[in-house]
Amino acid sequence: MSKIIDGNALANTIHAETAELVKILKMQKIVPKLAVFLVGKNPASASYVEKKKKWAEYIGMNCEVYKFPETITTKKLVEEIKKIQQTKKPHGCIVQLPLPVHIDRQEVLNTILPKRDVDCLTEINLGKLATGRTIFYPPTVSAILHILEEEKVNLKEKHVVIVGAGILVGKPLTSVLLYKEATVTICNKYTKNLKKQTKYADILVTAVGQKDLIRKDMIKRNAIVIDVGVSFKGKKMYGDAEFAKVMKKAKSITPTPGGVGPLTVAFLLRNTVIAASTKE
Amino acid sequence: MSKIIDGNALANTIHAETAELVKILKMQKIVPKLAVFLVGKNPASASYVEKKKKWAEYIGMNCEVYKFPETITTKKLVEEIKKIQQTKKPHGCIVQLPLPVHIDRQEVLNTILPKRDVDCLTEINLGKLATGRTIFYPPTVSAILHILEEEKVNLKEKHVVIVGAGILVGKPLTSVLLYKEATVTICNKYTKNLKKQTKYADILVTAVGQKDLIRKDMIKRNAIVIDVGVSFKGKKMYGDAEFAKVMKKAKSITPTPGGVGPLTVAFLLRNTVIAASTKE
Repeated sequence: MSKIIDGNALANTIHAETAELVKILKMQKIVPKLAVFLVGKNPASASYVEKKKKWAEYIGMNCEVYKFPETITTKKLVEEIKKIQQTKKPHGCIVQLPLPVHIDRQEVLNTILPKRDVDCLTEINLGKLATGRTIFYPPTVSAILHILEEEKVNLKEKHVVIVGAGILVGKPLTSVLLYKEATVTICNKYTKNLKKQTKYADILVTAVGQKDLIRKDMIKRNAIVIDVGVSFKGKKMYGDAEFAKVMKKAKSITPTPGGVGPLTVAFLLRNTVIAASTKE
Repeated sequence: MSKIIDGNALANTIHAETAELVKILKMQKIVPKLAVFLVGKNPASASYVEKKKKWAEYIGMNCEVYKFPETITTKKLVEEIKKIQQTKKPHGCIVQLPLPVHIDRQEVLNTILPKRDVDCLTEINLGKLATGRTIFYPPTVSAILHILEEEKVNLKEKHVVIVGAGILVGKPLTSVLLYKEATVTICNKYTKNLKKQTKYADILVTAVGQKDLIRKDMIKRNAIVIDVGVSFKGKKMYGDAEFAKVMKKAKSITPTPGGVGPLTVAFLLRNTVIAASTKE
């Protein structure tokens, strides 16, 4: 019988630990504060931000959401983020992605001070991720590593296949896995024969956002399947794996919703508390 | 019949182009200057530095080698590198690796100003490599990309397998190949069944430094084999591939010596000239 990994339960444990840290910080008159910069009216983004705010407040932190119009320029957005960092001094700052296409994404992300960059998306922190000297892992990467720890995986000697080479999951996860000395394959939309790559994976991480992309015949028996992809059909949320079938062949698998998503929120807030605990 | 890639000939073409750029800069009273920081008495390092200096001078650049004793501390080395950058204002700076084990390598590398970091080893430039916004590629990465261009490879849809996940080749090459949208597998010393990974590679890059690691049965027929590994037996230099046999099965292959090495020197000097052309 395959195991369905309960992301909500794992996240609740992390939240409880973080709440304890928040209590300790409050005794020192520090209330951890997360600033979220949200551009435009993407409903999925709005819903993710809502979840982050809800959990932040639930564990005793502050979370301020700064909203900007879809039409804002890169220059103006950079100025606003700088100003808010200087005046409000949040401990953690994130820019909710995606940004409108006319905005220079990396220019905006680099505006965040490295010590406040709790999503780990500034170039300086990506460099530190590459050299293994980072303070923060990207929350999704932490979520995936946490699941693998819970599954008692020794990454050395394991072959991890990642489907999707994006900036939030594929690329930073590769950086970190290379430091953990795993054998890693990264596939993208141009990969000729995806099944040829995925079917040898001890651990398959998929982060595309395409329903039923990963079928049962594409995985190795007893693989661990971590499904980070998100797509919607109407209001219903789907992962990348054909869940009901893939779960029968996998050793363990994350569901969507209730898999990696809740853990990602938990690690974002934990990063913010770490940032708040660090001396200026 | 397989093709042996002539790294010396390719490098000579790059050197000739760089020499032309040097002439143009000299008309503007700029003489491109490379500073090399060399710690200890590793004979291989000394020989590599000698080659860089010889070629720099041959194409009309200056190259100063600053030598430090094996026993120097991280703190002292950092101070010295800072001082030389401030007073001598070289356009490009490199720290010859490896450094003695007692030295904090990344701390020393980060001392180099990003605009002078012609080896692309500072964390800020590694971050820029990860976001695709770098000014300089690491010279070995440029050498490999140049060979693949010469071989008219379209990296999309190709499966590149890299053996060796080090900081000079495996890790930065992975970063760049992900931006080029190749499918990439990275293996290391813990990889369980190396042959299972390598035998599917359209392009095999090996960067280990272990003679005869890559045998004929480990490659796909008509693969391109780029051999970056270097090891010595007496004074004779070897790559990682069992050259005489592998070359019969490969479409093309780099020899050792005379493959990637000379091109790496050529791209280091080209990076230095680019640095010298950039306004302060």
